[in-house]
Amino acid sequence: MTEPVPSPRESGVLIIGAGLIGTSIGLALTAAGYPVHIQDRISSHALVAAGLGAGSVGEPAEVGLVVVAVPPAAAGPTVVQALRDHPRATVTDVASVKSPVLREVRAAGADASRYVGSHPMAGSHHSGPLTARADLFAGRTWVVAAGAGADPARVGLVRQIALVCGARVEEMDPAEHDVAVAEVSHVPQIVSSLMAGNLVGVEASHLRLAGQGVRDVTRIAASDETMWTQIITANQAAIRDRLAKLAAALTAVEESLDSPQAVSAFLEEGAAGVRALPGKHGRTAADYAHVVIEIPDSPGALARLFAEVDAAGVNVEDLTIEHDSQREVGYIAIAVLPDQAEALARSMTEAGWTLKS
Amino acid sequence: MTEPVPSPRESGVLIIGAGLIGTSIGLALTAAGYPVHIQDRISSHALVAAGLGAGSVGEPAEVGLVVVAVPPAAAGPTVVQALRDHPRATVTDVASVKSPVLREVRAAGADASRYVGSHPMAGSHHSGPLTARADLFAGRTWVVAAGAGADPARVGLVRQIALVCGARVEEMDPAEHDVAVAEVSHVPQIVSSLMAGNLVGVEASHLRLAGQGVRDVTRIAASDETMWTQIITANQAAIRDRLAKLAAALTAVEESLDSPQAVSAFLEEGAAGVRALPGKHGRTAADYAHVVIEIPDSPGALARLFAEVDAAGVNVEDLTIEHDSQREVGYIAIAVLPDQAEALARSMTEAGWTLKS
Repeated sequence: MTEPVPSPRESGVLIIGAGLIGTSIGLALTAAGYPVHIQDRISSHALVAAGLGAGSVGEPAEVGLVVVAVPPAAAGPTVVQALRDHPRATVTDVASVKSPVLREVRAAGADASRYVGSHPMAGSHHSGPLTARADLFAGRTWVVAAGAGADPARVGLVRQIALVCGARVEEMDPAEHDVAVAEVSHVPQIVSSLMAGNLVGVEASHLRLAGQGVRDVTRIAASDETMWTQIITANQAAIRDRLAKLAAALTAVEESLDSPQAVSAFLEEGAAGVRALPGKHGRTAADYAHVVIEIPDSPGALARLFAEVDAAGVNVEDLTIEHDSQREVGYIAIAVLPDQAEALARSMTEAGWTLKS
Repeated sequence: MTEPVPSPRESGVLIIGAGLIGTSIGLALTAAGYPVHIQDRISSHALVAAGLGAGSVGEPAEVGLVVVAVPPAAAGPTVVQALRDHPRATVTDVASVKSPVLREVRAAGADASRYVGSHPMAGSHHSGPLTARADLFAGRTWVVAAGAGADPARVGLVRQIALVCGARVEEMDPAEHDVAVAEVSHVPQIVSSLMAGNLVGVEASHLRLAGQGVRDVTRIAASDETMWTQIITANQAAIRDRLAKLAAALTAVEESLDSPQAVSAFLEEGAAGVRALPGKHGRTAADYAHVVIEIPDSPGALARLFAEVDAAGVNVEDLTIEHDSQREVGYIAIAVLPDQAEALARSMTEAGWTLKS
């Protein structure tokens, strides 16, 4: 631990795993002048990544940093192997659950002082090297979750890599990180799947009464099942506690359905939870006013609509589209700063659009 | 029951309740040539509705049809009173839970043969007479949920009213209707509120890791709490069974978090539930291809984007916007028919837009 820490900028970076995340890191670091090597269990993926400019294929004799960007279930063994194969390098990974990887490193007797876990939070519905981008992490949160025994110089080095990729770094204890993602990501995923699974077997005539609400609640239940199985099983400890709490709350609601006071308090608590979520750019959703405009379901309608919105000189903060399965029109709710709502509503009405509010 | 059923077109319609639904029905029926009278507990609301063209204020001596369009908790007593005040009229209501209203009519000894419950499903985040529109129900589902003892001629008359409003009529037994809306609307609302309520007390540093997923799952938890309290308590019987099933499923997941097979099967069931939901215009979501485009967060970007989409000659079937709380760009996922995706992607790339897929 007293020998000098090799610099990734001089000794190079090895990326193991040429998926969306690994390839995007390769693109960003290559663009920043780092010597990057990229490999993948499926060699054609590494070739594609290299072809995109994410580094050169193959494994050099020595590197300063190994980035393990493999599916969650493979992260632990791959990090352990990398610590052994590269006895002076710093090793990081990008798995979305951090404690189990650290646990595996320690259990294997590998050098935990050189392992610094991290979690770049670049959510995307897409995967594979072809969807990679050098700026995938620009402005995104990248959690650096170093274990207690990690060498501070190596923690700084992983922070630096995240910053070079354009990310905003949050340092967090691995166990705390896993609790946080259980709370804001893994449990919501399970709840969405639970609700969606409950729709299986519902009669088709009943499903025809479904509106936008149930669609929103269940949207992420269509996410990549293989990856989510690995994430959920990896973070089971943090998830289990919260599911138990949720099950208790569900039973409490079930038992108090006949009490308007209890139901109202329950719904109020939910509304408070929505308000607690930070809004876009740190503003909360309540800071915006919404102008709801009818859009005919025809080519060109949205272009005309946004041309008018543009002409009104307001900035669109957020958009929500609503429609149902029967009607050939939809509504678009445009969120704007409150002092711009009246002007937008007036402009749109004058331009012949039908407003709902 | 053998005397002739008075015709609403000749004898007129009385609408009780000048909110979004009542006023919209008034506008549609007035436009179709029906003599409409509208009243509200708050007389200024009735005046506003009348001013918009939803009928004339006041209660005539005799009408052919009374439409009770009051908040859910007031529906039962108001229907009973209307049956007494208008001894020859057909009475319908628009409450989103049907069995309790019918039960109140029977318990009060009112003439159940003249009561035909209905539920126009015109979901909106907005309320009040000012948001009303004559075509609010155009193409929407309107459930006619007549009890066993309802006079068939009067059921036909309520169907006719729904059709005049432009709705698509579904006939359903009141109890079955209540089960259907519990399944596709009330339980999802509770699940969303449950998840959102679970966020209260989560540390701010953890909430900063929240992405789009948890926002979608919890969106409807911000809905009107007063109305939802009334709906949920009114439909507690149908909801309770399904919540119990959900709680059991939640406990089963909690107990099988260490089994990748069980977690995978659970997630697969959720994905199957999403696929079971009918898509827009009866298509399923899987029928569309998605083109994901980066949008800079600046005025005019959306107008330019949709102008290009328009120039590409494709029809936008659906839109989803994604962003996070840190980054000053967003992504817009445009759903198009599969055979139009490639052309759209090519046009957008040629026009200088950055695609994610």
